[in-house]
Amino acid sequence: MRLGEIADLGSAQALLDWDQHTMMPATASASRADQMGTIALLQHQRLASDALGRLIDAAQGEVADAPYESDEASLVRVSRRDWEKAMRVPPDLRAEIARTTSLAQHAWAEARERSDFAAFLPHLRRNLELTERYAECLQGFEGIARTYDALLDEYEPGMRTEQVKAVLVQLRDGLRPLVAGLAGGGDGEGWSPLHGSFPVERQRELVGQLVAEFPLPEGGWRLDDSVHPFATSIGSGDVRLTTRYDAAYLGTAVWSAIHEAGHCLYGTGLPAELRRTPLYRSVSLGFDESQSRLWENWVGRGRPYIAWLISHLRERFPEQFADVSAQQLYADVNRPEPSLIRVEADEVTYNLHIVIRLELELAMIEGEIEPAELPEAWNALYREYLGIEVPNDSVGVLQDIHWAAGVFGYFSTYSLGNVIAGQLWESVREDNADLDAQIASGEFEPLADWLRQRLYRHAGRFTSPEMIERLLGELDVRPLLRHLEAKVAEVESVSA
Amino acid sequence: MRLGEIADLGSAQALLDWDQHTMMPATASASRADQMGTIALLQHQRLASDALGRLIDAAQGEVADAPYESDEASLVRVSRRDWEKAMRVPPDLRAEIARTTSLAQHAWAEARERSDFAAFLPHLRRNLELTERYAECLQGFEGIARTYDALLDEYEPGMRTEQVKAVLVQLRDGLRPLVAGLAGGGDGEGWSPLHGSFPVERQRELVGQLVAEFPLPEGGWRLDDSVHPFATSIGSGDVRLTTRYDAAYLGTAVWSAIHEAGHCLYGTGLPAELRRTPLYRSVSLGFDESQSRLWENWVGRGRPYIAWLISHLRERFPEQFADVSAQQLYADVNRPEPSLIRVEADEVTYNLHIVIRLELELAMIEGEIEPAELPEAWNALYREYLGIEVPNDSVGVLQDIHWAAGVFGYFSTYSLGNVIAGQLWESVREDNADLDAQIASGEFEPLADWLRQRLYRHAGRFTSPEMIERLLGELDVRPLLRHLEAKVAEVESVSA
Repeated sequence: MRLGEIADLGSAQALLDWDQHTMMPATASASRADQMGTIALLQHQRLASDALGRLIDAAQGEVADAPYESDEASLVRVSRRDWEKAMRVPPDLRAEIARTTSLAQHAWAEARERSDFAAFLPHLRRNLELTERYAECLQGFEGIARTYDALLDEYEPGMRTEQVKAVLVQLRDGLRPLVAGLAGGGDGEGWSPLHGSFPVERQRELVGQLVAEFPLPEGGWRLDDSVHPFATSIGSGDVRLTTRYDAAYLGTAVWSAIHEAGHCLYGTGLPAELRRTPLYRSVSLGFDESQSRLWENWVGRGRPYIAWLISHLRERFPEQFADVSAQQLYADVNRPEPSLIRVEADEVTYNLHIVIRLELELAMIEGEIEPAELPEAWNALYREYLGIEVPNDSVGVLQDIHWAAGVFGYFSTYSLGNVIAGQLWESVREDNADLDAQIASGEFEPLADWLRQRLYRHAGRFTSPEMIERLLGELDVRPLLRHLEAKVAEVESVSA
Repeated sequence: MRLGEIADLGSAQALLDWDQHTMMPATASASRADQMGTIALLQHQRLASDALGRLIDAAQGEVADAPYESDEASLVRVSRRDWEKAMRVPPDLRAEIARTTSLAQHAWAEARERSDFAAFLPHLRRNLELTERYAECLQGFEGIARTYDALLDEYEPGMRTEQVKAVLVQLRDGLRPLVAGLAGGGDGEGWSPLHGSFPVERQRELVGQLVAEFPLPEGGWRLDDSVHPFATSIGSGDVRLTTRYDAAYLGTAVWSAIHEAGHCLYGTGLPAELRRTPLYRSVSLGFDESQSRLWENWVGRGRPYIAWLISHLRERFPEQFADVSAQQLYADVNRPEPSLIRVEADEVTYNLHIVIRLELELAMIEGEIEPAELPEAWNALYREYLGIEVPNDSVGVLQDIHWAAGVFGYFSTYSLGNVIAGQLWESVREDNADLDAQIASGEFEPLADWLRQRLYRHAGRFTSPEMIERLLGELDVRPLLRHLEAKVAEVESVSA
């Protein structure tokens, strides 16, 4: 009952947020901020309450004999986890974080505009101080022993700093030689069939068809436009994705939509009987990202899907694609090239962008570098890992909103997602020898079902490390590295 | 603070509702019902609380010297009114009404399908019983002395049965001779330029332009499609309207949109400084309807607007409108003809449809007729007032959802709206001799501003009778009757 209310408030919040980014009239911003503030407050009050604590205590006895992975035991366990975390952080601190990071985001936007890191610096410092205070509240909770543990736990429940650090080091050491060996000097302006003139209305029809081909429940999803593509699950039977259209470049709309469709496939694969409970969610942001990346990169940029896609492209945009081979398109969407901007990076170099952020973030949080030294450190790592000179902070250390939003620890989930996707992909290929042929003929249900059985149906029962252990044994960056190495080799052989 | 929360929950509810009718994936119905139930419950709990009562008591003293119409005094007065009404009705009764009317609506939909009044009858009886119990809770509140008073008060705060009854009788007595004198025998299938083939996309563009020409704040509204057109104010700076497109008939989309735009003009005219308070609303449903009707019928079906509109129609649909005169279009959109279905009725006969419902509703509520006698009584009144034989209950007594939804007293607001609109129109014409010329040249701001100054800016400070007294002196059906008589005469002269 009480948990259902908390879930319903979460749904209302998700709708207010979706609407804000897709439908809301521009003049409603102030009202919307109030509305979302109120719903968040009411939700928090109901979660961080003694009454809920008593309910959980009472339920604990009832599920004492239930198996660990049963719905009942999981519900009590996960509710207690959410409740205890909510109780540990004083409402005043939460409110101060909300105010401070809101100001910091405005300051960041201006600072980025003028490439003026110094103007952002005091806000970053303040964010770090508050983050420190937040993390202190969680010390001792389930083995949280350092600041970064607490931050990570928000996005990757149960994951600890050492586990992420190990992945980070292995990724860095595996990727740096691969990236260093790339045929350099590309200026990103070679011929590409995806660049040209693509009327948005026809792009929208294409993307709508591509998403509809994925095994999303009929009448259970919708696709809209937004400035930044995103996916959200409003509630059971209601997932929504957006994409962004660039009339001069078809790639953005298509692969953003496939990425978001991956999130939606996870969302629609959660068991309906868990709806309106705290179990009705993905394991973690990393697991969620593993699905968007798996569908975007392993499926969407793979040879079989490109073969399937090109017939759609030839039909919808014959003038551009009549003479383009699947081979050429494959090379085009997979060409690795070191670049400045994370969100525009290719699949191979992307993880080095993340590695750089993780190293800096950890160093800042652990006091190894001063916030003031950040631009210099950033530029040095871009030079060292990607061989790129950063011309100014606007396209350097100021490019991402995360730290301005007080979001530390989040970047790791992008790489964890890629690592997990790599492992899942090797695993599903072992189980299903026909996977390539299925994808090449637009048959996605076998893959979706495999993922559903192994991952989606478990919903939020387990922490991230628990799910990793059950699903993968342990985190292993090698499948991702093998996947990227193979891509680099293939693209080079096509281009040669 | 507390009132702001209640308002924000109302906004969230409005968005959930808007989304349900415009955007929501079909499979989300069950989730959405839960979400809306929770938000309604939380809102009610915060309203019907001793804590709010104490806050209001405390505020009462502070505003003792403030003028009646001041924001402070009005806020306390209206909050106390809302609070006392909420406190008087036990939550159990509200829940029972919600359950019962939900079942009744399903039964009604099936009964209407099969024209089976007997199947609906027990549900109607149950609705009436619960309505009676609800009304008992409000006896004595601000002079509520009979059941219908209590029902009316929900939609028309402060309005009492005798006032509505007087309007009803005057309307009936004025309209019956007018309708009886109509050139009968029309089968509604005469030539009409609005019937034909109108691609929905081009209709949508036309309607978008027409609505944008009204003085709605830029970036503060949006127009969408829905099965039943509606308008809603989500919050300050955020009004939304919908319309419905019939590819074979242009009239539906255009005049539904103008009707809803009228509601939106009222919504956007509320003073922003009252946002997130219970004053941020229209006076009543009758006043709200006076605005939709005024814009739809007095403006939208008037000669000046038709002259303005026809140039748009000729531009967008030249094949249909090149040879149509403004005169012909005027006659076409104003041709009165008795018909079976309220929502399809013309402006002249419409109020007789309402009169019939009000007479029957009052008689049922006051025990003068048995629910079982309803079909017979309905058919007799249609024969007597409109000269029409009702072939079956599906297009007769079962045509409207209101009584199935437990909504008694609501119908009166449609006619009150028409009466008020008639009075406002005569009044604005006295003040503004250029009104016709302004409308004919697409200049709507002077009218909107007149309404804003006299009505919109008062928001929800006054009860319906208070606003009537301040704005109109008293209710007077004669302006509406004069308006309708003139239309009938003009249309006949065009057709002759």
